[in-house]
Amino acid sequence: MSFGVVEGGPGEEFISTVSGHPFGQVQFTGERQPLSQVRLLAPMLPSKVVAIGRNYADHAKELGNEVPEEPLIFLKPSTSVIGDGEAIAYPALSDRVDFEGELAVVIGRLCREVPVDRVKDVIFGYTCANDVTARDLQKKDVQFTRAKSFDTFCPLGPWIQTDLDPSDLALTTTVNGEVRQSARTSQLINDIPALVAYVSAVMTLIPGDVILTGTPAGVGPLEVGDEVSVGIEGIGTLTNKVVSRD
Amino acid sequence: MSFGVVEGGPGEEFISTVSGHPFGQVQFTGERQPLSQVRLLAPMLPSKVVAIGRNYADHAKELGNEVPEEPLIFLKPSTSVIGDGEAIAYPALSDRVDFEGELAVVIGRLCREVPVDRVKDVIFGYTCANDVTARDLQKKDVQFTRAKSFDTFCPLGPWIQTDLDPSDLALTTTVNGEVRQSARTSQLINDIPALVAYVSAVMTLIPGDVILTGTPAGVGPLEVGDEVSVGIEGIGTLTNKVVSRD
Repeated sequence: MSFGVVEGGPGEEFISTVSGHPFGQVQFTGERQPLSQVRLLAPMLPSKVVAIGRNYADHAKELGNEVPEEPLIFLKPSTSVIGDGEAIAYPALSDRVDFEGELAVVIGRLCREVPVDRVKDVIFGYTCANDVTARDLQKKDVQFTRAKSFDTFCPLGPWIQTDLDPSDLALTTTVNGEVRQSARTSQLINDIPALVAYVSAVMTLIPGDVILTGTPAGVGPLEVGDEVSVGIEGIGTLTNKVVSRD
Repeated sequence: MSFGVVEGGPGEEFISTVSGHPFGQVQFTGERQPLSQVRLLAPMLPSKVVAIGRNYADHAKELGNEVPEEPLIFLKPSTSVIGDGEAIAYPALSDRVDFEGELAVVIGRLCREVPVDRVKDVIFGYTCANDVTARDLQKKDVQFTRAKSFDTFCPLGPWIQTDLDPSDLALTTTVNGEVRQSARTSQLINDIPALVAYVSAVMTLIPGDVILTGTPAGVGPLEVGDEVSVGIEGIGTLTNKVVSRD
């Protein structure tokens, strides 16, 4: 298991391996491998995943919720994280598991109480996320935790894009190739600087920590056998199959 | 920073240092130090802290809540953990920060879907916890996350008691020496085997992960300058001062 940088043109991408972790100064080992021959893991091991609820007006509306006055935050455990190509395990405890495509922010520096105008300095990059949710348990419990915390319920990837303006990117979620969510990150109610400032006013963020920025309208159920993809302009596409947990 | 085993009688306790981490086979280094000369850190670095709400009937009642049908779970981030003697930082964002004394279960083995009768095999031990809560933000947000996740809002310690029957222990919380919570763990609505089975049916647990078992009646506000202690029979006492965050 190692970190690397994705380089090269479409269809000819390769990975240049870096030594240690990629936060701070990157040291290349000189080793290169074709991307097609590499198994991608989740691009970071977050100490925490902080997720934001109801941050696109049309999604809040589709579930019959008001847009909150302040960002609504919840946590997903590190044990819920999987990478591109890994399977989402449908738990026996739920009869309704939904996809939620999202833009994820990856933190690069130990930080707290970050002012809005300094947020760019603490961001390492961006990746695609699927905030998989057992909708029936979310409704039953009121607290989101159980519904959002099952193993495999936080696909992240395929990699981290470090050089990107995230303010107006197309986000598309497909299930078995059919478009189910189509939005732009410019529709975020609280933008990325506001979110990072808000979350870091509560808790210290650590390199590798992830903030999920919320999902747009179009969420819907997954069934065992489905293939769900979250694609974000300028980043790439995160694809996961759904399998039965047992 | 190292792990060790607390030995010796009252007033003459010493710590025998162990090499590596204390999960699995413990190897002593031969080094010993008087407990009084050691600065205790939080006794584990949890990948997650899973907390249980409304698990004592009299506490659910005092806040005007029903006892939930199933255990109510939420997460506290690892950045909220502090040890015995460290300061709880009162955040500027809240005007009402409450103590909540609790018995904490420390997991010793990688596990998921643990049956009730196997739970004893995955528990490493028990410690005292304070599930510090910004009560005003908890009411405002509905989701518990922000209110429970501030840095320093999860004191744990002073150490882990590995040889203990946790089913009927006295739990006492004091503020500036005055008793504020006094209960027995036999009053838990969902007992420890039920809680570990329930949580591990949702998410994989990792050695060092912590489950907070809920707080009894008597919760109340802390002010800057207060000293709060959570004492549990057979374990010890966790004491923390409250300071202003800034």
